[in-house]
Amino acid sequence: MAFRVAVVGATGLVGKELVKVLEKRRFPASSLRLLASDRSAGRTLFVNHQEVEVQELTPKSLDGIDLAFFAAGADVSLRYAPVAARKGTLVIDKSDAFRMHPRVPLVVPEVNPFDLREHRRLISSPNCATIQLVMALNPLQQVNPIRRVVVSTYQSVSGTGAAAIQELTAQSKQVLEGKNAIPHVYKHQIAFNLLPEIDVFLDNGYSKEEWKTVQETRKIMHLPELALSATCVRVPVFIGHSEAVHVEFSRPMSPEEARRILSQAPGVKVQDDPGVSLYPYPWTVAGTDEVFVGRLRQDLSVPYGLALWVVADNLRKGAALNAVQIAEELIKRDFLKGSGGEPIDE
Amino acid sequence: MAFRVAVVGATGLVGKELVKVLEKRRFPASSLRLLASDRSAGRTLFVNHQEVEVQELTPKSLDGIDLAFFAAGADVSLRYAPVAARKGTLVIDKSDAFRMHPRVPLVVPEVNPFDLREHRRLISSPNCATIQLVMALNPLQQVNPIRRVVVSTYQSVSGTGAAAIQELTAQSKQVLEGKNAIPHVYKHQIAFNLLPEIDVFLDNGYSKEEWKTVQETRKIMHLPELALSATCVRVPVFIGHSEAVHVEFSRPMSPEEARRILSQAPGVKVQDDPGVSLYPYPWTVAGTDEVFVGRLRQDLSVPYGLALWVVADNLRKGAALNAVQIAEELIKRDFLKGSGGEPIDE
Repeated sequence: MAFRVAVVGATGLVGKELVKVLEKRRFPASSLRLLASDRSAGRTLFVNHQEVEVQELTPKSLDGIDLAFFAAGADVSLRYAPVAARKGTLVIDKSDAFRMHPRVPLVVPEVNPFDLREHRRLISSPNCATIQLVMALNPLQQVNPIRRVVVSTYQSVSGTGAAAIQELTAQSKQVLEGKNAIPHVYKHQIAFNLLPEIDVFLDNGYSKEEWKTVQETRKIMHLPELALSATCVRVPVFIGHSEAVHVEFSRPMSPEEARRILSQAPGVKVQDDPGVSLYPYPWTVAGTDEVFVGRLRQDLSVPYGLALWVVADNLRKGAALNAVQIAEELIKRDFLKGSGGEPIDE
Repeated sequence: MAFRVAVVGATGLVGKELVKVLEKRRFPASSLRLLASDRSAGRTLFVNHQEVEVQELTPKSLDGIDLAFFAAGADVSLRYAPVAARKGTLVIDKSDAFRMHPRVPLVVPEVNPFDLREHRRLISSPNCATIQLVMALNPLQQVNPIRRVVVSTYQSVSGTGAAAIQELTAQSKQVLEGKNAIPHVYKHQIAFNLLPEIDVFLDNGYSKEEWKTVQETRKIMHLPELALSATCVRVPVFIGHSEAVHVEFSRPMSPEEARRILSQAPGVKVQDDPGVSLYPYPWTVAGTDEVFVGRLRQDLSVPYGLALWVVADNLRKGAALNAVQIAEELIKRDFLKGSGGEPIDE
């Protein structure tokens, strides 16, 4: 069994990572079509040591594709993903366009693989900050129901895209040379600074990123009432998102038990020996596949509290890897057909 | 009334800031003696446009001093502060050496000025992360008792000292030039990275910085049982600490009410209009005296919750300014004599 695969948004940070992950994991692709906006069409990327030309994304460019990964932003997904799905292409969408749609599964394969069963050829991959959070929370939730979560994030600029990496690089040089740093991508300087603004702000005062973390976590974990609050902050780090997580459980949960549970959880790696300064941090987590957890300790401010520190590569498990794992899971579980029917109402 | 003043640790980041703050606020000093370790003795600093030579700190160097600011670390304070206090010098100590001592007031003048009344010539100024937290929490606590606080910090390298500023500068250049960054001051690279390690780790899994935040907040706010949990993280920012704070109150507290209360609180400035990207961030807060609060919103994960974002210059209000304000408060309230008696038992 092999699939005619397309990557939409192939020249973006996540698109390039998708191509790399597909190669590295020897995904059963009989062909790989690279699609992007007309600005990027004509550029070439190396796939398995061969130059492949990027084609312009049009409705026709998706013809004859079994499986399309969308990583070009919500606008592109809104316009092209339902078109592709209706033509019979299985779409795995990295954008937030359809994540909260009731007929669209939102899946982290280690957490809720069975939600894939009922798909209608359109599946969403969650937000980067959400993926690493549920990877750490779900194994604990399985043995001890969670009552409340407070999470503060430390998110790298690669979550915004290639232009943001250039901006952090350029501004850092400017500051080090004593020059003024001019913001383009972000509203304010990001070099040697922090910005508590990710995505737009909603009427309730939360940023959309913070609100996504709440809503997507509830959907993935099948806990529609889960009490969760988030503060999302952009930090001057290139790759790797970090999260300070404070969890309240229904029953006692010792750091030792949590460490044991998490070390057995697939895709999770415990790095936790603060006495020798062993804990995860983005510089070394960048380029790895796992979700790293450290700083496990009793949160002494509630009866059954636990504090932890969660770090993952936002381009890998937070984006490209999770999308590819969704496809692998569909194949492995023989869920490719889904439940049939139109993916979404127009 | 004028005082013979000494600054111990005058060549450090906080010591230099102390000299600047004393000058700027026209502190009533009849003389200013600059003291430091033998390594720094002989160097000169400008005070009111005049060169002043730094003298070596010895027990004798504190003779004839009415008021001494200690900003040279806990070891120096442990050794010299009680000596000075016993000789009759009024000591305001920036280190953590005596902060939790029952006979030593731990004061943020806007929060607990009356604790200054019973001093025994030794007064502690709190940790930087604690000062800005209680500045934001106390005005709210006055009208609506706080039930629980979860705080995650984003702390700049200037909290560590001048060597850490050099390290962030040097490592950032190395990374931008594609070279390896070698850690000296911190256990791991800090440039374009985050480290969830500030001060040593305790047996309960918290770092000492996290635990200080809990204990000092309780002491300053006179809430010995306050439920508070903290995660303290070092970020690649030069000056200015930021905090994501999630508070649970006893009764409803709307963001509007909190905004009104905090805009009237002395030393606090509300900067909160996310729709136009107005919120505080360290790059512009550096060099200012106030504690800035923004991102006020309902924390919807608890009945009476509020989330906020607090930023302050850790060298100013977080250190030098607060120490000078303590001295000003003692003068203003005529608390200079204190309660008499030995400052601490040996």
